[in-house]
Amino acid sequence: MTVSYTSKVTHAKQFGCFLKLLALWRGSIYKLIYPDLLLFHAAFIFLGILYNYILPEGGQRIFEKISIYCEKHGTLIPVAFVLGFYVSQVISRWWDQYKQIPWIDTLSFWVHASIRGNGEKDRILRRTIMRYACLAITQCFTRICPRVKKRFPTLDHFVEAGLLLESEKEIMLSLEKTAETGAKYPTHFIALVWATGLIVRGRAENKVTNDAFVNLMITEINKIKDGLFMLISYDWISLPLVYTQVVTLAVYTYFLACLMGKQWLRDPHAPAEENAAWGIETIVVFFPVFTVLQFFFYMGWLKVAESLLNPFGDDVRQ
Amino acid sequence: MTVSYTSKVTHAKQFGCFLKLLALWRGSIYKLIYPDLLLFHAAFIFLGILYNYILPEGGQRIFEKISIYCEKHGTLIPVAFVLGFYVSQVISRWWDQYKQIPWIDTLSFWVHASIRGNGEKDRILRRTIMRYACLAITQCFTRICPRVKKRFPTLDHFVEAGLLLESEKEIMLSLEKTAETGAKYPTHFIALVWATGLIVRGRAENKVTNDAFVNLMITEINKIKDGLFMLISYDWISLPLVYTQVVTLAVYTYFLACLMGKQWLRDPHAPAEENAAWGIETIVVFFPVFTVLQFFFYMGWLKVAESLLNPFGDDVRQ
Amino acid sequence: MTVSYTSKVTHAKQFGCFLKLLALWRGSIYKLIYPDLLLFHAAFIFLGILYNYILPEGGQRIFEKISIYCEKHGTLIPVAFVLGFYVSQVISRWWDQYKQIPWIDTLSFWVHASIRGNGEKDRILRRTIMRYACLAITQCFTRICPRVKKRFPTLDHFVEAGLLLESEKEIMLSLEKTAETGAKYPTHFIALVWATGLIVRGRAENKVTNDAFVNLMITEINKIKDGLFMLISYDWISLPLVYTQVVTLAVYTYFLACLMGKQWLRDPHAPAEENAAWGIETIVVFFPVFTVLQFFFYMGWLKVAESLLNPFGDDVRQ
Amino acid sequence: MTVSYTSKVTHAKQFGCFLKLLALWRGSIYKLIYPDLLLFHAAFIFLGILYNYILPEGGQRIFEKISIYCEKHGTLIPVAFVLGFYVSQVISRWWDQYKQIPWIDTLSFWVHASIRGNGEKDRILRRTIMRYACLAITQCFTRICPRVKKRFPTLDHFVEAGLLLESEKEIMLSLEKTAETGAKYPTHFIALVWATGLIVRGRAENKVTNDAFVNLMITEINKIKDGLFMLISYDWISLPLVYTQVVTLAVYTYFLACLMGKQWLRDPHAPAEENAAWGIETIVVFFPVFTVLQFFFYMGWLKVAESLLNPFGDDVRQ
Amino acid sequence: MTVSYTSKVTHAKQFGCFLKLLALWRGSIYKLIYPDLLLFHAAFIFLGILYNYILPEGGQRIFEKISIYCEKHGTLIPVAFVLGFYVSQVISRWWDQYKQIPWIDTLSFWVHASIRGNGEKDRILRRTIMRYACLAITQCFTRICPRVKKRFPTLDHFVEAGLLLESEKEIMLSLEKTAETGAKYPTHFIALVWATGLIVRGRAENKVTNDAFVNLMITEINKIKDGLFMLISYDWISLPLVYTQVVTLAVYTYFLACLMGKQWLRDPHAPAEENAAWGIETIVVFFPVFTVLQFFFYMGWLKVAESLLNPFGDDVRQ
Repeated sequence: MTVSYTSKVTHAKQFGCFLKLLALWRGSIYKLIYPDLLLFHAAFIFLGILYNYILPEGGQRIFEKISIYCEKHGTLIPVAFVLGFYVSQVISRWWDQYKQIPWIDTLSFWVHASIRGNGEKDRILRRTIMRYACLAITQCFTRICPRVKKRFPTLDHFVEAGLLLESEKEIMLSLEKTAETGAKYPTHFIALVWATGLIVRGRAENKVTNDAFVNLMITEINKIKDGLFMLISYDWISLPLVYTQVVTLAVYTYFLACLMGKQWLRDPHAPAEENAAWGIETIVVFFPVFTVLQFFFYMGWLKVAESLLNPFGDDVRQ
Repeated sequence: MTVSYTSKVTHAKQFGCFLKLLALWRGSIYKLIYPDLLLFHAAFIFLGILYNYILPEGGQRIFEKISIYCEKHGTLIPVAFVLGFYVSQVISRWWDQYKQIPWIDTLSFWVHASIRGNGEKDRILRRTIMRYACLAITQCFTRICPRVKKRFPTLDHFVEAGLLLESEKEIMLSLEKTAETGAKYPTHFIALVWATGLIVRGRAENKVTNDAFVNLMITEINKIKDGLFMLISYDWISLPLVYTQVVTLAVYTYFLACLMGKQWLRDPHAPAEENAAWGIETIVVFFPVFTVLQFFFYMGWLKVAESLLNPFGDDVRQ
Repeated sequence: MTVSYTSKVTHAKQFGCFLKLLALWRGSIYKLIYPDLLLFHAAFIFLGILYNYILPEGGQRIFEKISIYCEKHGTLIPVAFVLGFYVSQVISRWWDQYKQIPWIDTLSFWVHASIRGNGEKDRILRRTIMRYACLAITQCFTRICPRVKKRFPTLDHFVEAGLLLESEKEIMLSLEKTAETGAKYPTHFIALVWATGLIVRGRAENKVTNDAFVNLMITEINKIKDGLFMLISYDWISLPLVYTQVVTLAVYTYFLACLMGKQWLRDPHAPAEENAAWGIETIVVFFPVFTVLQFFFYMGWLKVAESLLNPFGDDVRQ
Repeated sequence: MTVSYTSKVTHAKQFGCFLKLLALWRGSIYKLIYPDLLLFHAAFIFLGILYNYILPEGGQRIFEKISIYCEKHGTLIPVAFVLGFYVSQVISRWWDQYKQIPWIDTLSFWVHASIRGNGEKDRILRRTIMRYACLAITQCFTRICPRVKKRFPTLDHFVEAGLLLESEKEIMLSLEKTAETGAKYPTHFIALVWATGLIVRGRAENKVTNDAFVNLMITEINKIKDGLFMLISYDWISLPLVYTQVVTLAVYTYFLACLMGKQWLRDPHAPAEENAAWGIETIVVFFPVFTVLQFFFYMGWLKVAESLLNPFGDDVRQ
Repeated sequence: MTVSYTSKVTHAKQFGCFLKLLALWRGSIYKLIYPDLLLFHAAFIFLGILYNYILPEGGQRIFEKISIYCEKHGTLIPVAFVLGFYVSQVISRWWDQYKQIPWIDTLSFWVHASIRGNGEKDRILRRTIMRYACLAITQCFTRICPRVKKRFPTLDHFVEAGLLLESEKEIMLSLEKTAETGAKYPTHFIALVWATGLIVRGRAENKVTNDAFVNLMITEINKIKDGLFMLISYDWISLPLVYTQVVTLAVYTYFLACLMGKQWLRDPHAPAEENAAWGIETIVVFFPVFTVLQFFFYMGWLKVAESLLNPFGDDVRQ
């Protein structure tokens, strides 16, 4: 789940509206990137020291040749282009997934409208249908979201939470046993089948006042099922691994090339004393501003993809 | 809400059709950008004066080195590319949000068609259903739009405006109390539940002439609910903060680099008097035309994103 | 409305299939662009003459400096990129608008199927429902399309055209008076409300043979209303002005920069007589082929946006 | 219609999977491009011979200046960019059109389910409804697809093919006469109106067992009508001519510039004998490998657009 | 079918989250690419040896000229751009296909709800309807998926698997015989027609309790048919062959140009002994790091397209 920040940007007219966002820490680029950045920076400084203070002159020449080679070819890697297309696709998948999450509101509207009795039985009927819907959704999320799995590791936890009756648990376990012989088809739509059965029986007992209501409620249950099914699909059928690997390789090799290629090199034709007493360039040796910024852009962009590729991952609260 | 200007571009054949748009002020790029631009320009001139009149020669050499470094690396920042992808996504989200805004027209058509009586009770029934729809929409907008919140800060304001009865307010308050124990689920769909109840009761009392009409009206109420829910979702689940930060960082650091990198530098090999009596370049020192234009393009593009990221923000009337 | 030309490109195998399209004049790029191009070319030639024949040598040096400056920085303007994204969005909005235009065919199918009587009253009922649909669509178009407004400037013209009865006009005028007190909500959906009323009454009088037909016809009327509403929305909520201004600024400043930057400059190191007797370059001075071509591409691309941004504009027949 | 080749690429793991596709001729890039390529190559060689063997030295100098000018400015034409956006849009329109093609399967399922009698009259009713659907689709395709027009140039050919009865033809002709007074609205939806009438009459005669079936069949007929209408729309409202012209101009002028700009030029500073006895470059003069390859890419890309812009064009079987 | 790996990237915060993915082998870029890469590398080394050790000096000069020519022009091939657009389109087609795969869940819900009897006949009715749905889906997949074809090469295999009765097989064979006279229209929707017939008969025998259920079930069967039809369409109407050829040509010729253009060339002005005793460059001769990386990116990107263009191809389990 992403961190909400729109309430902070209500005035586009305001001066430097988006600048404020740069000061956020929770869910921010800094928080996501700083371990990678520290490592990158440390390696960069190490190579800088190696080149300037440790290597003999012959080694320096070789270092310079490698550096120039990396600089020249590193820019050929189409990082921005590859990332642009990849992140677009990941973001559109992410929002599609959000839209597929089923909610029980509409079903509850229909149950409310169609089962109007005030007796205890009617109340239980209404509640049980809604409970089954909640149960199916929760069971489904245990498959795709580690957080929910931690909360509901076994069926007993569902019973405890009041989502499942002891007797229903027995039926589920027996069904799972039957299905376990190799089958992998998700067994968590059973609760929705039960709900369907309840509705039809409710119509037979005239608790549901109208045939059309039966259809509308079952249609709604089917929509919940379809939503859950698509969520499982998105979890199961990812963007091809090859694509993700291509993008990851592009970004990481680009920065490997930068490690060497962006080093400050001595001017071979400059007099020795100037190379010794270099002034402002010292900063570049130890803090390469623009390379670090590029690290921010590209790595941050990649992190957008990383956090959205599996939106139900463990970092739901970043 | 954007400023409407299509009536100004009805003739594409006309000479310089879009040129006229550049003369608009309300909702224009100038109005959005001028504070940022003034600051940027001031800083640019300050650095120009610093370099030309204040710094000693040693300082000038360092300034020149930094400037060349910024110029060289600043162009590596893929501003246009990052902005192109980001703004596309923000714009498509913005239009999706517009399309999700629910309207009561269709519901009123169905109410008009299905409750045909002319008695006082029928009239009140028709009016109350529509009032509930308006109430739910307004309540929902108080959550996502600061302007509406200012107009309706408490439930009393709804009562005053005639959207809510005193007795209904009591029920809402008592429900909110119950829900306040930690729950965050929006309570403003209650009015729609009431509307559903009214419709079903109206059918039982034969005021609604037809079973199918019940379903169609409740379906329409569900559509209003879904629209409101999606609006809240768009407000709640923004584009990942990391993405917005990456874009903001890219644009701002690009112009920070421009501040130094686009300064006019003296030619070290030119004779001193020429550097002193430079002619046309004076303008560039104090008014860097193309850098200011780039500021217009890129910052304007970013402002498009800023104003559309939260379309219900305070600047609804720019 | 665009000019249809697909019948001219039925053979992709044919040699130079698209080349034929370049010879079209109606709705063509030449027709749209020639006034801008003439002005641009005149200014270009004027500057060329100024530089070569009028300016003294000192002025020529300044001219050259400005020209080199424009040439160098003008290429930094990301015209192609900005235009590519912008035109994509305008085109997709344009086609979305086309798809929203409501047609009365489906409604007429349902009317034909559900009101089967052959009496005069049945015939009038069928005709009146269809007339109301046509009336609503036409009234709506007077708001978004200047051409239709010219044809139907007042309600009297509707009466003349047979779309409105005198008595209905009176009702509309009285409603408009009521609404005029500040409200801006379109009053042209009234005819659809009337149509709905007719259908329901027709069912009560058993002229409509079936409850389901009532629902289907009202659903269809609602679709017409939704289409009209979206058309008004597209007219009312344009792409943000800022975005259009950014694109326009980018294109026009690019060509302003070209006016100076693409001038042929004398080679300062060449002997004087060669500069005097320049051969082939004379053409470039007075007819800069590639700059004119770029003007065609970019300005033509912008014109695509101009003509599609307001598709119901005055130039419906280019 | 495109040539199917997916069966040839079932193994992505296989070595050089896509390479095999390059060996296809039917529907291939070579078949589409070779006439253009031959002309381009001939012109290129002609210019090469002109420069090397025919022109006097003065002419060679001018040729060289033009060539350098073309080389420098030709690369400024954003061919890849313009083509990328344009082809994307053409391809998405093409697939949208495919999805709009109506099929009679669903209607036949409903007819099969709802008219269950075994008598001769029932059989004729079923057949006539389906015949009308086929007739409407075929009539519509005569308007947008030259191939179908060739097969069915007049209504008599429909009668021959058994799609139309002689008596129905008379009605159609009389209707066309009425409509011919200026109106252009397609008359080929009449068969669908007839089908609707048959269904309603069939219900009255109790041949259709159920009211709901009437609605479902008419809804399906409306879907066929909508699909046909959208196909006509796509044929009628093309992508703006200006856009297609911009793209065509960009590609063709790019290759015109290449004709001159990619010529191999003598090195003016090289000794004369080397220029006379140039070795490997002879190939470049007469066969410019990479320019020809670029011709393949860009012209091929344009041809993709050409063949998909009018997918019902004459080259349905390439 | 793609390899699932989202469970490996649940922590975006984690250090180097995507780096882990690079270590995967199954479905990975290495597995897909290594044969092409080995060949490319072998050719590269061969050319390197040829140039350095085998060719006489005259040949070396020619080699150098070709190499420089390839290097200069190879970079003009817009590989990244062409691939970016093409892969986007292939991926969106791939996911559209996945979404079109019909599932029998919803149908089974409706069957479960509408045929409530417990008798043997009711049970058989329920089972037969579901069997027909499974049969139609499986038959359809034999046409588009070689794996399924291998499992069910003839109708006898369907009978064996219990999807088809012997008597039904006879009917199908007789139908196929009738249709074989030239027609190519798929015969595998017959099972769905049978299912429709069963449902209608079930209603007549009052086993289906409700008219609306009949419609809902047939509507669901039509959805399955539409899904299957679209799957066949995607298989039948591929992206235009020209487009795929353009992309393939671009990638392969780019790497052919690299074979020559990326060779390390001796510095003609360097003293002989340095060229003989070149140090670090030896690696480049035999292992051109960045060219190999580019091979990974671009070829991997192309492989994404190759494996998704025909998602039901033989490599369903990579």
